[in-house]
Amino acid sequence: MSEQLIERTPSAHYNPLLIKSLLDNPIRQFPEQEIVYGDFKRQTYRDLGERVSRLASGLAGLGVRRGDTVAVMDWDSHRYLECFFAVPMMGAVLHTVNIRLSPEQILYTINHAEDDVILVNTEFLPVLEAIRDRIEPVKKLVLLNDTGQTPATTLDIGTEYETLLASGDPDYKFPDFSEDARATTFYTTGTTGLPKGVYFSHRQLVLHTFGTLAALTGTGQGRFNRDDVYMPITPMFHVHAWGIPYAATLLGVKQIYPGRYVPEQLLSLIQRESVTFSHCVPTILQMLLASPKVEEIDLSRWKVTIGGAALPQALAKQARDRGVDIFTAYGMSETCPLLTLAHLKPHMLDWDEERQLEIRCKTGLPLPLVELRVVDEDMNDLPHDGTTSGEVVVRSPWLTQGYLKDPQTSEQLWRGGYLHTGDIGTIDQEGYLKITDRLKDVIKTGGEWISSLELEDLILKHPAVTETAVVGIPDPKWGERPLALVVLKPDRTGQVDEATIRDWLKDFADKGIISKWGIPDRVLFVDSIPKTSVGKLNKKEMRQQYAQTIQGG
Amino acid sequence: MSEQLIERTPSAHYNPLLIKSLLDNPIRQFPEQEIVYGDFKRQTYRDLGERVSRLASGLAGLGVRRGDTVAVMDWDSHRYLECFFAVPMMGAVLHTVNIRLSPEQILYTINHAEDDVILVNTEFLPVLEAIRDRIEPVKKLVLLNDTGQTPATTLDIGTEYETLLASGDPDYKFPDFSEDARATTFYTTGTTGLPKGVYFSHRQLVLHTFGTLAALTGTGQGRFNRDDVYMPITPMFHVHAWGIPYAATLLGVKQIYPGRYVPEQLLSLIQRESVTFSHCVPTILQMLLASPKVEEIDLSRWKVTIGGAALPQALAKQARDRGVDIFTAYGMSETCPLLTLAHLKPHMLDWDEERQLEIRCKTGLPLPLVELRVVDEDMNDLPHDGTTSGEVVVRSPWLTQGYLKDPQTSEQLWRGGYLHTGDIGTIDQEGYLKITDRLKDVIKTGGEWISSLELEDLILKHPAVTETAVVGIPDPKWGERPLALVVLKPDRTGQVDEATIRDWLKDFADKGIISKWGIPDRVLFVDSIPKTSVGKLNKKEMRQQYAQTIQGG
Repeated sequence: MSEQLIERTPSAHYNPLLIKSLLDNPIRQFPEQEIVYGDFKRQTYRDLGERVSRLASGLAGLGVRRGDTVAVMDWDSHRYLECFFAVPMMGAVLHTVNIRLSPEQILYTINHAEDDVILVNTEFLPVLEAIRDRIEPVKKLVLLNDTGQTPATTLDIGTEYETLLASGDPDYKFPDFSEDARATTFYTTGTTGLPKGVYFSHRQLVLHTFGTLAALTGTGQGRFNRDDVYMPITPMFHVHAWGIPYAATLLGVKQIYPGRYVPEQLLSLIQRESVTFSHCVPTILQMLLASPKVEEIDLSRWKVTIGGAALPQALAKQARDRGVDIFTAYGMSETCPLLTLAHLKPHMLDWDEERQLEIRCKTGLPLPLVELRVVDEDMNDLPHDGTTSGEVVVRSPWLTQGYLKDPQTSEQLWRGGYLHTGDIGTIDQEGYLKITDRLKDVIKTGGEWISSLELEDLILKHPAVTETAVVGIPDPKWGERPLALVVLKPDRTGQVDEATIRDWLKDFADKGIISKWGIPDRVLFVDSIPKTSVGKLNKKEMRQQYAQTIQGG
Repeated sequence: MSEQLIERTPSAHYNPLLIKSLLDNPIRQFPEQEIVYGDFKRQTYRDLGERVSRLASGLAGLGVRRGDTVAVMDWDSHRYLECFFAVPMMGAVLHTVNIRLSPEQILYTINHAEDDVILVNTEFLPVLEAIRDRIEPVKKLVLLNDTGQTPATTLDIGTEYETLLASGDPDYKFPDFSEDARATTFYTTGTTGLPKGVYFSHRQLVLHTFGTLAALTGTGQGRFNRDDVYMPITPMFHVHAWGIPYAATLLGVKQIYPGRYVPEQLLSLIQRESVTFSHCVPTILQMLLASPKVEEIDLSRWKVTIGGAALPQALAKQARDRGVDIFTAYGMSETCPLLTLAHLKPHMLDWDEERQLEIRCKTGLPLPLVELRVVDEDMNDLPHDGTTSGEVVVRSPWLTQGYLKDPQTSEQLWRGGYLHTGDIGTIDQEGYLKITDRLKDVIKTGGEWISSLELEDLILKHPAVTETAVVGIPDPKWGERPLALVVLKPDRTGQVDEATIRDWLKDFADKGIISKWGIPDRVLFVDSIPKTSVGKLNKKEMRQQYAQTIQGG
């Protein structure tokens, strides 16, 4: 005996979960709501609706058909938001190009994704010029131009974005099709190998939008609401700017797209447009809080969720001191991205600031529809005691179902029927996940696992330190030993030595917060710390570079 | 060329949208949160999780298999919530029996739904006893008993609910299956013909939950949140208590199930449990506000959304005067049910009370994923000008795809590919729907359409009137003419005559608010107004009864 499927009378309409279904109601209900592109443009939701139709119609005129791929190389803009809707809604695939990659990597992703049309901001023309002869086949180019001038380029520019829209049909009819159609694709770069393509369907993006909204709007603290003003500070090319542009549009909130990220400009926009909700990586927040301009600005209505890297308690404290409602988000390119949010539960709202800070810096509570487990190497569940750590594996309706044209790595990602995040974490009795390390960055010393993230967090608490990274260095006796790289604040350079940092950590070891084996044998003071193209610590490079330094030293 | 469907690596997990996916995270994240059943029982979310498993396991032990139907006859209780989850989660169909129907109608629905097991509250045993010989085939009965005593009954009771749970497995594993599996079924009764069965799949209920949550939690006013306390006052047998129990559970809020609705008891629960969010029909709200007990209770933290019938402005005003955050919801059995909510937009929060009241009493803004049109008889869209009225037709992922075993009426419901609500309404420039009448209740007089609801709303504003209904009565000259039935407040009986009410309406006609043709020729003062089993005005009966009265008089 099996379950009964519902019967469908022939005339009944079946609603596939398509991105277009997110757009109609907000445009009707909030037609005058604003969408702002830095200092360049102010438009309304009504404009958005009309321009999305014109864009799709214009692209169709350029020859874009269902199943084709349209690439975008732009800063965060109202145009990018229009592409988020128009391209998938016409049945094409949106390729959000990571413009921070090297030209060689960009070339690889354009060819690998088989882009048919590229929408390119004037600023990135030199990148395309550098690789033009190796793009196959030659693509049609649409220029995104904020300069007001015709750029000097040897590339064959098909048309300009606004010209394309002007010629488009404002009543373009978007077709119905399968909710499993591919809507977006983009590339994730680790420290090894070629970029890997992930991809998401209409169904996945719609469900991600609703899962995210349920978590972000239903909460007490850190709540995203219809009366918020939204500005992303995580690029739109990077995992759909965490999918929040879709959620923000559905809610009908005012949206600010800041263009290229310049700290003073971001702060000005927060002030001028009364921005109340953003998301960013720790590095950007640190830059904003370090800007002299921050003194002039009231941040007490600003809610910010932090992802991409662990949120150090010291940074969170700094933000809280300015009144920022800060909390962690967690996810990755493979997961659309959101998996958890570190909201305070209602009963925690009475807690003192320090206890709250600890929760805000946890990795968070799984979103609705996210099944998140912490498992041992045999995929057995580990106890939710806040200390036993294992790999984080997940299931959810919005996870990439593989890597593009890479069956082997796809199977590796999904081995055992769960997506493997490659992160090590613990779950506590309240249900909060805490990522303690990357599986590949955890330091294995004398049979014990030392969390590099935990050490970094403690070192960062030292008042003289502005940045740090801890990596495992091969050791003949212990397997690996931790090495700490430390950047001192400019006014403290030369005032702090290796012993100071080691003593600082020894205090925490004496209190039982870390194992005494966790205290690095060596602390190196450096001017800067190697990062990847998306601003993450490049530990692979550090391990290579400093293993030699140490052995040579 | 067609769209590209996403590729799925063999090991990737596909998450069907199943009701079980709503339950796991709240139980893990809010295990100590409370669920209260009137004065009978307090339990936690942890208990809920365990009891849902035990119930499914116990039902399986009784022989319930995937595709079977389990009927429930109970007041609103923690048990009913358990059935909302356990029965569909095991792949069976939950039949929520409308216990306000006549025994003959209940018999019809039990046989038509082909129930396999009936969970029945002691109080409804007499109903089953009356129809026992005609239930086919004989069902297994599970007793829901709050009395603490063994009831005297001639029925063959299989087991008692708590006994069944005690014997069940707290680690029962719920299977995966198609998201299009039927999860629930129940019957809608008009004033004509046999009850009609509607049905909803797992996918539909999950999407309804997320659509509802996005609208209810993302708003400024009337916001449902993690720190709310929820108590339904629309029965759980009636369209899933508007689906809010699923949404409340997902959020992890405290839930109160009040048993049978007794106004003083409801008020006591609101007070004792600090209830902050409810939904009900206007009649119930009126009873609550008319209770002497209301004087002792602070309702200023209570949010109530009103559906099932139009919310009269006079009643809304009365609620506002007590501080209640009141607003309209709209839907029907066929629509799962929610289609619209009459939330204030952010810019309306500064409006004066009277203008806000008008919005709160509109039918509302369509929920996310609801495509709602007002059309003429040829299905052309009518202008959104707030005055042009036509039939409301809808599409959404959560509409019944037909009537159970009734192909002809199913096609009628869905003619033209849209679900026909049978309601007449207008949409204004802000996007708010306002239902002006039922298609079958609108009064056609001299070529003009008169809204019976609008007349009722105006008559209700008269200080002496407590209840009213307006129906069209056949008229040889004009086709139809309106007749008003009026119930006066007890202390005003005999003090108001027909001319007073006609003059009252003439004022509104003079101001252009209604057509002068809308003033009823006859006003009859009556002791009560005929209602259907679910408490709606029974206009069919009135038309029959009073057409004769008038013609005879």
